[in-house]
Amino acid sequence: MERRREERQHSWWRSRRPKDVKIRMKAVGICGSDVHYYKHMRLTNSIVKEPMVIGHEYAGVVEEIGNEVTHLAVGDNVTLEPGVSCAHCSHCKEGRYNLCDEMKCFATPPIHGCLANFVVHPASLCFKLPENVSLEEGAMCEPLSVGVHACRRAGAGPHTKVLIMGSGPIGLVTLMAAKEFGFPRVAVVDVDENRLKMAQELGAHEVGCVSTRIEDVEKEVLEIQQKMAAGIDITFDCAGLEKTMRTALKATRSGGEVCLVGMGHVEMKVPSTAAAAREVDILGLHRYRNTYQLCIDLISSGRINVKPLITHRFRFSQEDVVKAFNVSAMGGSAIKVMFNI
Amino acid sequence: MERRREERQHSWWRSRRPKDVKIRMKAVGICGSDVHYYKHMRLTNSIVKEPMVIGHEYAGVVEEIGNEVTHLAVGDNVTLEPGVSCAHCSHCKEGRYNLCDEMKCFATPPIHGCLANFVVHPASLCFKLPENVSLEEGAMCEPLSVGVHACRRAGAGPHTKVLIMGSGPIGLVTLMAAKEFGFPRVAVVDVDENRLKMAQELGAHEVGCVSTRIEDVEKEVLEIQQKMAAGIDITFDCAGLEKTMRTALKATRSGGEVCLVGMGHVEMKVPSTAAAAREVDILGLHRYRNTYQLCIDLISSGRINVKPLITHRFRFSQEDVVKAFNVSAMGGSAIKVMFNI
Amino acid sequence: MERRREERQHSWWRSRRPKDVKIRMKAVGICGSDVHYYKHMRLTNSIVKEPMVIGHEYAGVVEEIGNEVTHLAVGDNVTLEPGVSCAHCSHCKEGRYNLCDEMKCFATPPIHGCLANFVVHPASLCFKLPENVSLEEGAMCEPLSVGVHACRRAGAGPHTKVLIMGSGPIGLVTLMAAKEFGFPRVAVVDVDENRLKMAQELGAHEVGCVSTRIEDVEKEVLEIQQKMAAGIDITFDCAGLEKTMRTALKATRSGGEVCLVGMGHVEMKVPSTAAAAREVDILGLHRYRNTYQLCIDLISSGRINVKPLITHRFRFSQEDVVKAFNVSAMGGSAIKVMFNI
Amino acid sequence: MERRREERQHSWWRSRRPKDVKIRMKAVGICGSDVHYYKHMRLTNSIVKEPMVIGHEYAGVVEEIGNEVTHLAVGDNVTLEPGVSCAHCSHCKEGRYNLCDEMKCFATPPIHGCLANFVVHPASLCFKLPENVSLEEGAMCEPLSVGVHACRRAGAGPHTKVLIMGSGPIGLVTLMAAKEFGFPRVAVVDVDENRLKMAQELGAHEVGCVSTRIEDVEKEVLEIQQKMAAGIDITFDCAGLEKTMRTALKATRSGGEVCLVGMGHVEMKVPSTAAAAREVDILGLHRYRNTYQLCIDLISSGRINVKPLITHRFRFSQEDVVKAFNVSAMGGSAIKVMFNI
Repeated sequence: MERRREERQHSWWRSRRPKDVKIRMKAVGICGSDVHYYKHMRLTNSIVKEPMVIGHEYAGVVEEIGNEVTHLAVGDNVTLEPGVSCAHCSHCKEGRYNLCDEMKCFATPPIHGCLANFVVHPASLCFKLPENVSLEEGAMCEPLSVGVHACRRAGAGPHTKVLIMGSGPIGLVTLMAAKEFGFPRVAVVDVDENRLKMAQELGAHEVGCVSTRIEDVEKEVLEIQQKMAAGIDITFDCAGLEKTMRTALKATRSGGEVCLVGMGHVEMKVPSTAAAAREVDILGLHRYRNTYQLCIDLISSGRINVKPLITHRFRFSQEDVVKAFNVSAMGGSAIKVMFNI
Repeated sequence: MERRREERQHSWWRSRRPKDVKIRMKAVGICGSDVHYYKHMRLTNSIVKEPMVIGHEYAGVVEEIGNEVTHLAVGDNVTLEPGVSCAHCSHCKEGRYNLCDEMKCFATPPIHGCLANFVVHPASLCFKLPENVSLEEGAMCEPLSVGVHACRRAGAGPHTKVLIMGSGPIGLVTLMAAKEFGFPRVAVVDVDENRLKMAQELGAHEVGCVSTRIEDVEKEVLEIQQKMAAGIDITFDCAGLEKTMRTALKATRSGGEVCLVGMGHVEMKVPSTAAAAREVDILGLHRYRNTYQLCIDLISSGRINVKPLITHRFRFSQEDVVKAFNVSAMGGSAIKVMFNI
Repeated sequence: MERRREERQHSWWRSRRPKDVKIRMKAVGICGSDVHYYKHMRLTNSIVKEPMVIGHEYAGVVEEIGNEVTHLAVGDNVTLEPGVSCAHCSHCKEGRYNLCDEMKCFATPPIHGCLANFVVHPASLCFKLPENVSLEEGAMCEPLSVGVHACRRAGAGPHTKVLIMGSGPIGLVTLMAAKEFGFPRVAVVDVDENRLKMAQELGAHEVGCVSTRIEDVEKEVLEIQQKMAAGIDITFDCAGLEKTMRTALKATRSGGEVCLVGMGHVEMKVPSTAAAAREVDILGLHRYRNTYQLCIDLISSGRINVKPLITHRFRFSQEDVVKAFNVSAMGGSAIKVMFNI
Repeated sequence: MERRREERQHSWWRSRRPKDVKIRMKAVGICGSDVHYYKHMRLTNSIVKEPMVIGHEYAGVVEEIGNEVTHLAVGDNVTLEPGVSCAHCSHCKEGRYNLCDEMKCFATPPIHGCLANFVVHPASLCFKLPENVSLEEGAMCEPLSVGVHACRRAGAGPHTKVLIMGSGPIGLVTLMAAKEFGFPRVAVVDVDENRLKMAQELGAHEVGCVSTRIEDVEKEVLEIQQKMAAGIDITFDCAGLEKTMRTALKATRSGGEVCLVGMGHVEMKVPSTAAAAREVDILGLHRYRNTYQLCIDLISSGRINVKPLITHRFRFSQEDVVKAFNVSAMGGSAIKVMFNI
């Protein structure tokens, strides 16, 4: 199996070589979507139909470069943006390449992931890591990109009061990104006290433990609003549950925005009309675009420290892979699980 | 009762006079919200607790002006923007005065409407009608403003393919406005063949009769998308029902927008996550802002003809008022019912 | 010479074939920049160092297609967007591909133009013409694109009062585009009465003949502002001279925009500070992006009629080419000169 | 004289009382424009025709409040936004109240400034200072507002590389603001080594001493671009001279922005066409809007420390006023001169 994949990649390599790069994988993080595929063999409309290699948060060392590649050299440490867009459709031409219908993304069926020894990738999606950014930190550019894209879409800035629903990996990177978009005050709520503690350590001004009961929405909204006296401009719902969206829509001030980042529930019953009548807009999010270089700069300059998020590390042996997925699937104090290959 | 109100307005007049104007009402349209109050005594969170005069689509003749009013003269025909905002809160200062928490709007409890012989109003909200715009047309600036604000919020332009759900009064003014924001192709769907016929006469490129059954969403979405080959950039949901929102969210292309204009259902169960994962944003709408002068220009230049929307006219007698509300409440071929006072 | 070029293109064809298309040229328009190269052998920083074929406004018939091309067939009429961007730099990824540093554009040194019998071009830049759009009209998508891009950058809409300085080919296409972005009132000024007459025929509400003397700026600004009572929101300076920019900066209302489209003077002495102190922004323009399909739609739907702009036609013989360039260089009543090959 | 002004203000007080506040002045900063009036009796189009009190950067203690004022109490420390806009014109309604034609601003002829013992001001323009923000810091909200407004207009964010021309008071507050809008890299250039040293202490990544000779532009642009490897997205020209604008226009990357903040030269000869052809836009700036609360939050939270900018302090005696203006007019190491009244 492993061999067949290597071969397939080899033929790809031969045909696309001039602008491609071959990377020896070193660090691969496990994402919630990886765990989802591992457990359920599907994620919304993407269904795993044959054995698939997962992994799309990754960094490695350049092993070979195509002859038209100029910004990289053999031996460079790089992090890889996983999605390859067509570059020619209307979305790509308008700068929203993350919405490209022809997007080929690692670890989205039927494309294999990068939990492997080597991958071949377009050089324009390989970003060189400066000396003071480790390969593990490089791999963290992927989840951090989600937070950066969320803040950009929502127009976060120094004037925005922010509420983050959920303090799992995505809630925490959104918190980190929001701080660098310059916000004066952020609150994070979750059901898990441990994760809230981490949010506080990472700079949240207010944290609050909430319930999972829809009946508690009204009360909790009042509590949140009291903590954030001046009104909440942007809520990032990093859970994406019916209950969290209800809270998000009610807690956000007139004219504000709710950014739906998490994907907990496929369908949800929400008070859409009342939110619309206050011009509270609901923004969606599909991965990210044009975020990698910024993430590297944020980490390299010391403005964002992603290391505390890496809570568990495993080697890339059959036994450890199973362990790693089990740890990752448990949630709780396990934020980000990383393979060192 | 009538007398007490006149008195109250008189005292208001005396205290606020320098920048106010007294208007003799001539034309007042009946809005869906007026009918709603008439029938249910409430609209979302606004509850009618004591007798209230309704009406907020109106035009009249200037009877008196305050001594600091310079842009109007006694005898001018004017249309009136009903909502008076505080001018000092953060929303007002940022140009989103329609979201002002202190907004005092005609016919929103506890503020009386303008279905009366006289009203007193700030001069800055009274817009002079040019000779070629009738008082009835002036009153139509109010509903037309909703369509204009919807198109502005959604960023409609010459490149946008538009879908409009619902061809009642608001669906039709949104159609009219969208055409002036320069759209190449618009489809309108409704359950009522008569209203669709009017949409077609007003310039819709495609019209389609749809069902009210949620089970039909998938099939209808396919049909709509086939008619609008190039993808739908903006959907205006002018019905605001669970079924129409489901269609809107699925029919709109990745990266597009659904503008929730209608207020049919308070809560709705919708596939929010799938829409968010395609960056289909949901925009709300609260009345309008800075639309009146544009509406007058659009009507005066002949670019928009609102006359076909005025399907019924009544005098302002006790008997006719009842009739008028009954006609308006019936829907169907009655688009806009107008009082001539 | 001609032969060598054909050969070069053939080798390009062989190497890039799968997504390229070979086009038999049919209609080629002469642009001001072509005339500029013809007369001066340079345009700002682009210098002609060896014999160069000009021409970048063009349409033709598909002769061959690469085997990965799906949206075109042999025999299709197409218009061609001339610039080929790299698709991978930060400008390209952000949707501003017209600013790509690696852009290869027909008729910009050292790239040959398309005034030839055949060209080979990426399929994604070849746009199929519907039956009711002629090849000449297809070639006009290029200049029309400049007007469309100008209106987009400036945010023209139904509310914007527009002033256009200069009624040459670019002034006139900007006028046409502005009308479709929904403007209520537009004024065009020029030094040439004949061209102003054409502007009026094409729908300008106000036209005015101005002088070339800088001393007349103040007086002319007053006259323009009086004609456009409500203030000018956007001025498109399609001449780009010191005198026109002075007028543009003074005539535009506080908070408005001056879009510098023309390239008459390289340097100009202007009252920048006074304009800045009124937040009158100056926007630049580099060709266009994502405009071709919209231009085809606008022409095909009858909303824009480019035919009146084509004032002269020539065959593609040695003798006629000289004549054509001489006519084009004269300006005046010659708006657009077209070759039929 | 002093007495007549007090009287005038008293009558204003009586007539406007309900929403006004009377403030005992405590701290007043001297602005470059104050010095300009002091020395030249004019600033662009504003001419001093009779004795005028200057001062518009100020803070004080609430002495009396009108009976409709709810958010302030006697004894509160407040800073005052000086400009009173009409609240009803199109600029005000669209949220650009700083462009209001009816704006009445302290220390802009014929309106007196606030270098006085008492002023009366609309409560909505008086912002309460928290305990940890001193009156002097409160007065600094005015110049800081210019930097904040500049960053907002230019869309500064974590991804933007910034160049600041000039490190006088406005250059330095722009630097401070830019850091809070989240920039990874900023360069500041000036002719004065002392001021550059302060820029460096305040967090500029690169500083460079430049000449005043136009002939040096090309060389200096190269040097600046080499220091800021990744290209300059936004240049704030806080000097506003012909030479600095030439540098700004050439140094900024394609698609970037030059924000003209300073007002050194009224007219300037600049290479506008070449900048426009790279879509380098020129943005103007008129004071600020909606900045005061944000400035207070930035200071109160410790994110911006304005104290180092206050280099000189004077009492409010006749003798000291002359000294203060002389120090302020000298520039160099005098950044901000403050009166303690």
